Amino acid sequence: MASAFELTILGSSSATPTAKRNPTAQLLNIAERFFLIDCGEATQIQLRRFKIRFQRINHIFISHLHGDHYLGLMGLLSSLHLLGRKNEMHVYAPYGLQKIIDLQMEISGTELSYEIHWHELNGEKPEIIFEDKLLTVETIILNHRIPCCGFIFREKPKSFSIDKEQVAYYGVPLSQMMSIKNGEDAVLEDGTVIQNHLITRGQQKSRSYAFCSDTRFDDRVIQKVKDVDLLYHEATFLHEMLERAKQTYHCTALEAGRVARLAKVSKLIIGHFSVRYVDLNPLLEEAKIEFPETFLGEEGKIFNIPEQAFVKKSAI
Amino acid sequence: MASAFELTILGSSSATPTAKRNPTAQLLNIAERFFLIDCGEATQIQLRRFKIRFQRINHIFISHLHGDHYLGLMGLLSSLHLLGRKNEMHVYAPYGLQKIIDLQMEISGTELSYEIHWHELNGEKPEIIFEDKLLTVETIILNHRIPCCGFIFREKPKSFSIDKEQVAYYGVPLSQMMSIKNGEDAVLEDGTVIQNHLITRGQQKSRSYAFCSDTRFDDRVIQKVKDVDLLYHEATFLHEMLERAKQTYHCTALEAGRVARLAKVSKLIIGHFSVRYVDLNPLLEEAKIEFPETFLGEEGKIFNIPEQAFVKKSAI
Repeated sequence: MASAFELTILGSSSATPTAKRNPTAQLLNIAERFFLIDCGEATQIQLRRFKIRFQRINHIFISHLHGDHYLGLMGLLSSLHLLGRKNEMHVYAPYGLQKIIDLQMEISGTELSYEIHWHELNGEKPEIIFEDKLLTVETIILNHRIPCCGFIFREKPKSFSIDKEQVAYYGVPLSQMMSIKNGEDAVLEDGTVIQNHLITRGQQKSRSYAFCSDTRFDDRVIQKVKDVDLLYHEATFLHEMLERAKQTYHCTALEAGRVARLAKVSKLIIGHFSVRYVDLNPLLEEAKIEFPETFLGEEGKIFNIPEQAFVKKSAI
Repeated sequence: MASAFELTILGSSSATPTAKRNPTAQLLNIAERFFLIDCGEATQIQLRRFKIRFQRINHIFISHLHGDHYLGLMGLLSSLHLLGRKNEMHVYAPYGLQKIIDLQMEISGTELSYEIHWHELNGEKPEIIFEDKLLTVETIILNHRIPCCGFIFREKPKSFSIDKEQVAYYGVPLSQMMSIKNGEDAVLEDGTVIQNHLITRGQQKSRSYAFCSDTRFDDRVIQKVKDVDLLYHEATFLHEMLERAKQTYHCTALEAGRVARLAKVSKLIIGHFSVRYVDLNPLLEEAKIEFPETFLGEEGKIFNIPEQAFVKKSAI
């Protein structure tokens, strides 16, 4: 079965929501692990609207503590409790959010039915903040008015896929399967070497997604997101408002496109649109000047990174 | 021009929102004074959806500190700030909410562009918490798991409306207009008494609205809301779930209807519906058994209390 790598946009608005655009939140499904990235006000309503079973979320990543990125968290955590959650929840967030949530739990007299593990983000230097057998999550230090982190989700290097018929044909001993999966050649009992590419279908490239909101245009960000398959980058303003973008520590759509081009990513999603833009197409067109493979990160849109083609070791 | 007394329902859901139902919030317009009553998550989105200019709100009343009644406040206050508000805001809420908001403002590094005046509600005994020349707002002590207040909005007694033609006909001196408006008779210079009903169109009955959420069925509440024109009362469950209602300090639709009947109100709105009810009609039908003039308080519905007919003093 193909392994999912699928991003659902729950909110595309910047600081203030509109009747049609919600503040930032995204759901990332990697192989049925569900990661919530930012949690603006009404995220739980968006999750319901898009029929996402939110008890499956076990990890929540909050980029920074401006309200449009976290104000939905208290409501979501409360609803999970009211719906009887038992599983632990991990929340990765800057210093302060735990205090905000703890105070509200205390004042409302709530004792959660599940445990929250808080992981405090270091706003100064990038870190690996999550790792399991399939993937890692690393922070990106963004350039914003208050400490703010982006996140890169990367699949770990994948195994070489054994070609069972070829393995049988050459009579490769079972004991060597692990090393073959790791890319080694096989050695038969008589000493004959069978090159890896003859007995495997090859290896699939690992997929990656980088989330960058909110930030000024910054070379260090470009370095960090180099070559990712999918990049979300904020594009709060049109370039004619560059000065305003700088003042407020945000980017223009043209700058977002430039980040994508310079970082050589495969696909760019823009979002965090200022409430002043009713029609988003000018933002899209502007980003496309720099980077044609740009898409609007609008509510309900799903971006899927399919599994990559197998590449034989001989071709790497 | 007729003076408005108009309630807009922004949210009808109980503890957890659904894709279609928001948590509690209502907007009351009395003579172009805009009062927000409770402010569940995403209230600011509802205000935008229903095209309500929310900078006109100067008074916010929060019944209690369960999340479904206040979690939208931080986002609303932030948006008002980002949109450049200068006018003072008054927030009436139980102890604790100011701490919650102050902590979040501090952590996000926000200095508001306007001042908030906090008014702490006394959860033990009813008080007049607002008064101006047109109306008063009084609390109702509700029976809930944590301190919880309802609110009664009452127009003050209205002036008797001068009948200019009759006043001219009798030659009533201008100096007596104020006392005539207060219901006094006029006295001409020759000592002749002109009865009030001959020189005024009479007096309009003052209008009133009572908001009761969340609460168990309670006689003391019935006493407080006696004779109001419009009563909002929570009706979280059907009566078949009476035990659950009692456990969770809520009411059934039948109980809400009973409160309305015993308090002899004119019209009842029910709300705060449990997420378990997709179809709300059974709740409506149940409340109507006790009180036929019951309506569902669904998102976007507007309830208007028209100005009452003039009643002459002789008929009072």
